[in-house]
Amino acid sequence: MITEITLKDLNISAFINQKVQEIRNAVGNGIAINALSGGVDSSAVTMLGHRALGNQLRTVFIENGLMRAGEAEQVAGFFKKLGVEIEIIDAREEFLDALKGINDPEKKREAITQTFYKKVFGRLVRESGAKFLLQGTILTDVDETVAGIKRQHNVFEQLGIDPQEAFGYKILEPMIQLRKDSVRAVGKELGLPAELFDRIPFPGPALSARVIGEVTRERIETVRKATEVVERILKNVRAFQYMAILHEDRVTGMRDGKRDFGQQIEIRCWDSVDARVASPTQLSWDTLRQLASDILNEVPGVVSVTYNIATKPPSTIEAV
Amino acid sequence: MITEITLKDLNISAFINQKVQEIRNAVGNGIAINALSGGVDSSAVTMLGHRALGNQLRTVFIENGLMRAGEAEQVAGFFKKLGVEIEIIDAREEFLDALKGINDPEKKREAITQTFYKKVFGRLVRESGAKFLLQGTILTDVDETVAGIKRQHNVFEQLGIDPQEAFGYKILEPMIQLRKDSVRAVGKELGLPAELFDRIPFPGPALSARVIGEVTRERIETVRKATEVVERILKNVRAFQYMAILHEDRVTGMRDGKRDFGQQIEIRCWDSVDARVASPTQLSWDTLRQLASDILNEVPGVVSVTYNIATKPPSTIEAV
Repeated sequence: MITEITLKDLNISAFINQKVQEIRNAVGNGIAINALSGGVDSSAVTMLGHRALGNQLRTVFIENGLMRAGEAEQVAGFFKKLGVEIEIIDAREEFLDALKGINDPEKKREAITQTFYKKVFGRLVRESGAKFLLQGTILTDVDETVAGIKRQHNVFEQLGIDPQEAFGYKILEPMIQLRKDSVRAVGKELGLPAELFDRIPFPGPALSARVIGEVTRERIETVRKATEVVERILKNVRAFQYMAILHEDRVTGMRDGKRDFGQQIEIRCWDSVDARVASPTQLSWDTLRQLASDILNEVPGVVSVTYNIATKPPSTIEAV
Repeated sequence: MITEITLKDLNISAFINQKVQEIRNAVGNGIAINALSGGVDSSAVTMLGHRALGNQLRTVFIENGLMRAGEAEQVAGFFKKLGVEIEIIDAREEFLDALKGINDPEKKREAITQTFYKKVFGRLVRESGAKFLLQGTILTDVDETVAGIKRQHNVFEQLGIDPQEAFGYKILEPMIQLRKDSVRAVGKELGLPAELFDRIPFPGPALSARVIGEVTRERIETVRKATEVVERILKNVRAFQYMAILHEDRVTGMRDGKRDFGQQIEIRCWDSVDARVASPTQLSWDTLRQLASDILNEVPGVVSVTYNIATKPPSTIEAV
């Protein structure tokens, strides 16, 4: 049973000092490793770990080829300013290979998880000699695992590390008693910049969750360009989340006076408090026109753009 | 070379009298036949033909199973009030069979054309003993055939009638010198009701052009229900055309708290003068909300609704 620490009861600097001490005591003269995604949780735990361990902590950012334009460099840049060196691991080929020929959304997610843990991060852990894995698990993750929303994860099994041989490995989860609001407070205290908190949330499978059907380099490139347009135009809109989705259906279009089957981009922009229920943001027609026109001009192969008008439920935030 | 009669130069009642006389002279004591679609051209030529020939003209409405709800009955009802009996030919099975397994839009169109002319109408022509085919061809059709936009049609070949054996068959095209505006004027003079002119134009392949991917009875039923909602809610909007399109892509949805892959309906509503360029009608958010909510409530299997925001070009009016 994990005891929750609410934001109201949280003494931020005392909490940080205590966790820094616990991490130091656990790791001693050893090596720890963690994977940074650029989300608030993994960013906060990275800062906490580096305050505790300095160069004894290796932080890797796994570039899976499914990220937004410039994402790895942007995240590494934030941390460089804070004096923390992030290793960017180029695993783009491995992820694209793993996704080849897969259309089913669940299987896509599974392929990404497997590639991340078993292949790429597992290899890094083994090669690094690190015996300590630092993870940004929060109390909500634990709740969701118990409730069956997230799958129960045996981290070692995920990493392809045999529990028999794995003797001595240790998982460190210093934020497991906190919820999101407290993690944000801890992150701010540790110096994380506002831009990092302002970034639109991005799900685990990244842009592959924004592609209906098979994920290929070319299709990821298409949805990445559309995502750039959507994030540029909507960045000042007060919305819970917004996204571009590449459809698999082909629709008729005209280019240079000729019929031309092309692709369709769907835009979703959601108003929501907690993602459980959501409704489409009532964007102005000026904004909708701008979105369509910039996508049609800037994204090769796209001849059609739609805007989601359905609520959740029965829709979901993501299409895939 | 066909001489155009412009609306300005058209003496409507004199034109009607002249064409009635020409049709009578041509048919004599014979039998003529025509296929009514419910569009303005075929409706006007039906009225002209019946004024000329009375019961010597058989008018058939071919129910292809791809029409809007109640379409055949509605069109036949208009004509019944004008004293003209329309035979509704139930060819639903033949069309659905012909469309089975076809995904390519061009091949869909071809299957419908072939089934219409060669199978169904060709059979009716042969069985009727009619030697005269009355057609609502207008000057714009001729222009488009010459320009290669429509395919050059040898009507006999389309009907599967051998030109050698076909000696004695004759095509009557009384409106071939007119354009749409003049046809409307002639139609009004012949008593066609305003509702018939107010109906939203519907392309030849009917609802099959509103289904991306394979056309099945179930998928036609889905898009038909969505079309009913769209036409009901948008009937007072001043727009050039509006439609519901059933996508083939499956998207994630929630029903009764469970993840459920479902279907997506795209709505298009166009502002346009002549269909050459068009932009999405700037519907109010009240209307968009109503469209989405009624479709989600009334159309089984649909979990997502989008609204087209792209212009033509590069989009086209129809998706398929």
